[in-house]
Amino acid sequence: MAAEVKVGLMGLGTVGSGVVRLIEENGRDLYNQTGSKISIAKILVQDLDKERSLTVQKGLLTDQAEDILDNKEIDIVVEVMGGIDPARTYIRQALLNGKHVVTANKDVMALHGSELLLIAKEQECDLFYEASVAGGIPILRTLVDGFSSDRIGKIIGIVNGTTNYILTEMKQKGSAFADVLGQAQSLGYAEADPTSDVEGLDAARKMTILGRLGFHMNLSLEDVKVKGISDVTLEDVQFAGQMGYTLKLVGIAQLDGGKVEVSVQPVMLTDHHPLASVDGVYNAVYIYGDAVGETMFYGPGAGDLPTGTAVVSDLVTVVKSMRLGVNGKGAVAPYREKRLKSKREVFSKYFLRLRVRDEAGVLAQLTQLFAETAVSLERVLQLPCSEKGEAEIVLITHTASQHQLDSVKGRVEAMDAVIHIQSHYRVEGGSAV
Amino acid sequence: MAAEVKVGLMGLGTVGSGVVRLIEENGRDLYNQTGSKISIAKILVQDLDKERSLTVQKGLLTDQAEDILDNKEIDIVVEVMGGIDPARTYIRQALLNGKHVVTANKDVMALHGSELLLIAKEQECDLFYEASVAGGIPILRTLVDGFSSDRIGKIIGIVNGTTNYILTEMKQKGSAFADVLGQAQSLGYAEADPTSDVEGLDAARKMTILGRLGFHMNLSLEDVKVKGISDVTLEDVQFAGQMGYTLKLVGIAQLDGGKVEVSVQPVMLTDHHPLASVDGVYNAVYIYGDAVGETMFYGPGAGDLPTGTAVVSDLVTVVKSMRLGVNGKGAVAPYREKRLKSKREVFSKYFLRLRVRDEAGVLAQLTQLFAETAVSLERVLQLPCSEKGEAEIVLITHTASQHQLDSVKGRVEAMDAVIHIQSHYRVEGGSAV
Repeated sequence: MAAEVKVGLMGLGTVGSGVVRLIEENGRDLYNQTGSKISIAKILVQDLDKERSLTVQKGLLTDQAEDILDNKEIDIVVEVMGGIDPARTYIRQALLNGKHVVTANKDVMALHGSELLLIAKEQECDLFYEASVAGGIPILRTLVDGFSSDRIGKIIGIVNGTTNYILTEMKQKGSAFADVLGQAQSLGYAEADPTSDVEGLDAARKMTILGRLGFHMNLSLEDVKVKGISDVTLEDVQFAGQMGYTLKLVGIAQLDGGKVEVSVQPVMLTDHHPLASVDGVYNAVYIYGDAVGETMFYGPGAGDLPTGTAVVSDLVTVVKSMRLGVNGKGAVAPYREKRLKSKREVFSKYFLRLRVRDEAGVLAQLTQLFAETAVSLERVLQLPCSEKGEAEIVLITHTASQHQLDSVKGRVEAMDAVIHIQSHYRVEGGSAV
Repeated sequence: MAAEVKVGLMGLGTVGSGVVRLIEENGRDLYNQTGSKISIAKILVQDLDKERSLTVQKGLLTDQAEDILDNKEIDIVVEVMGGIDPARTYIRQALLNGKHVVTANKDVMALHGSELLLIAKEQECDLFYEASVAGGIPILRTLVDGFSSDRIGKIIGIVNGTTNYILTEMKQKGSAFADVLGQAQSLGYAEADPTSDVEGLDAARKMTILGRLGFHMNLSLEDVKVKGISDVTLEDVQFAGQMGYTLKLVGIAQLDGGKVEVSVQPVMLTDHHPLASVDGVYNAVYIYGDAVGETMFYGPGAGDLPTGTAVVSDLVTVVKSMRLGVNGKGAVAPYREKRLKSKREVFSKYFLRLRVRDEAGVLAQLTQLFAETAVSLERVLQLPCSEKGEAEIVLITHTASQHQLDSVKGRVEAMDAVIHIQSHYRVEGGSAV
């Protein structure tokens, strides 16, 4: 193998600039670890003349993808453009041309990962994507290598920094959702169009990837139930805090009896859960393994250099495998049949907050109704309310199926004394008291 | 390569039993990942007739190491006996006989790891030891693979469950060190002779291993400055809590300007440091990378199944490499020259608690003395004291060198008004307020 490995970089935005810097600054360490000099031979950009904070040799830039994809000198393509198209086409073509690919693209990997990994395997090429989930946490290789001996039962991830920042600020500053979102946008923590983050779609893509690797099943994005945080009120956040919980947008992937559930939703985490204290734009992934028990992996979720480290660590793995001549041979394809849980098979505790008429006997009626639907209650709190003649009731259930919850919710809403259900959340992490 | 890989297990204690269970229970998953059936061919025990909780086929047991070391059918030796000898001799002999080795032995790897890794390389054999540090956290492979692109500046580890349990109980229950130690011994969290844990030696061995991999330097156990927790008083723990700190026994390995320091000592961690909330017997390793920033990896530090998962994950890696024919070729030997910091080059904040005579002007004399030694103070607290005519003063310094601290301590102790220095601790994690 040549002492020099040539990389074609597709994209020179935040992550791309980080990759260039890391390869330049840590070149000696990379050489010591791989025995090869890793150099960037071409960089695909949209605008050749754009002013950039990073100084790059003019001759390296191109606006023609073919200059990389058809370049026989290039061994490895690094795709950090983002978005589905043309990134997907480029990755596919690079693999078909026998090039190894490292990508940071969660969208492509969540939607088309299975197809692309199959092509990589056929071509005996590597396709790595550590940077696509929780940039600064080497969580994919941890799932694949570190947990290879264990059966993972549950993955809970705080995998979207924007929403975690918003919920942290709501809790710590007592600000409303819309105010914090505006502030996050001005700080660059949220996009101008925040839908993908705020509605949980970004997290859902990452959970698809984590679930596939953790459970060895060919999960699709459509298998993920998604609910975002745009309906979360400051009251909910504060109620949670008073009761010993922290509201977080988390992805939950759980496997029981061979069947799987994957969701993204705001949940009440008990304050002693390791994820409850993960604040701001940080990401963390909690993994429960049958044998190992509770583990958690914490770090920055985004940023040029954190995400860049994930890309370059993948590059190092590709180059080491090139030296050994074993590229494309390490990957293990999903080997378990995908079986999804029904609503009768998804179990958890729930938090319900109701607005009711302040009449005698309401609490008795409610508890009677829960007893009839076989959902038992862990805590019941009745609270005064600013509206005259009304009261708030907070209920925390013992474990119940989602089907049971839906059914009990329907019956609660139909009660004369109930004005409406203000909010309901899944509860994770055991009892808060 | 044969479709069956045969393992010789040396030791059938806690970890050994976990390994047997995992290989039996997860056999199908291991096959799906490696393409090979992994089976245990022989188990070395001291007493063939001992009653065991685990049912093992009688014919598998042997009390002769040669039955494994000289057994041509055995591809991989798993050493989980613990202790230096004969474990070291067995590992050496296994490698010389061309067998791959997986070990959970921190003592052997801290003291003789460099020699054994060299033999492994010459023999083109694998020698993996993930289980030797923080059993349930795949931290070694994370350092080697996940951080290959970054420069690690600092590693802080809570890597001893016994001492972390003791300090957690002291804080939460307000009990004295000796009482909690006794209780930990009766619960099986501390050994009958707790010296190795309590005096920081166990943690020092693990830090040697972490420092070597993190900094690519050939560190020795003698390079680690060690101080245990047997002098930590309940007062110190409570003072820490009142001031926004948590006292933890941590290992610190830090690299600045090409020079390294490694220590194990009780430190004051600010409560918002990710490690501060790691309680009980849990372990956690905090890594600061130049590019990635702050990350933390959390999980159980010991136990049959958690440690067993680390051993079996290493086994999976060996078997995968056997299929590809690349054993013994992935390891990167330390490539940076070992350079240790002097006391003038180790910098941190410090916490000092003094008992002084309750006289006018003491505080002024003290602050004057600190100013003269160029150690500036971040916080000064004077507190009343149960002894008549005496007072307690707590000082938190800004960053100073260890040399400066030693010098200022000497001058403080020589002051007429100072009765004695009650305690002093390194402070980590920035300001508590």
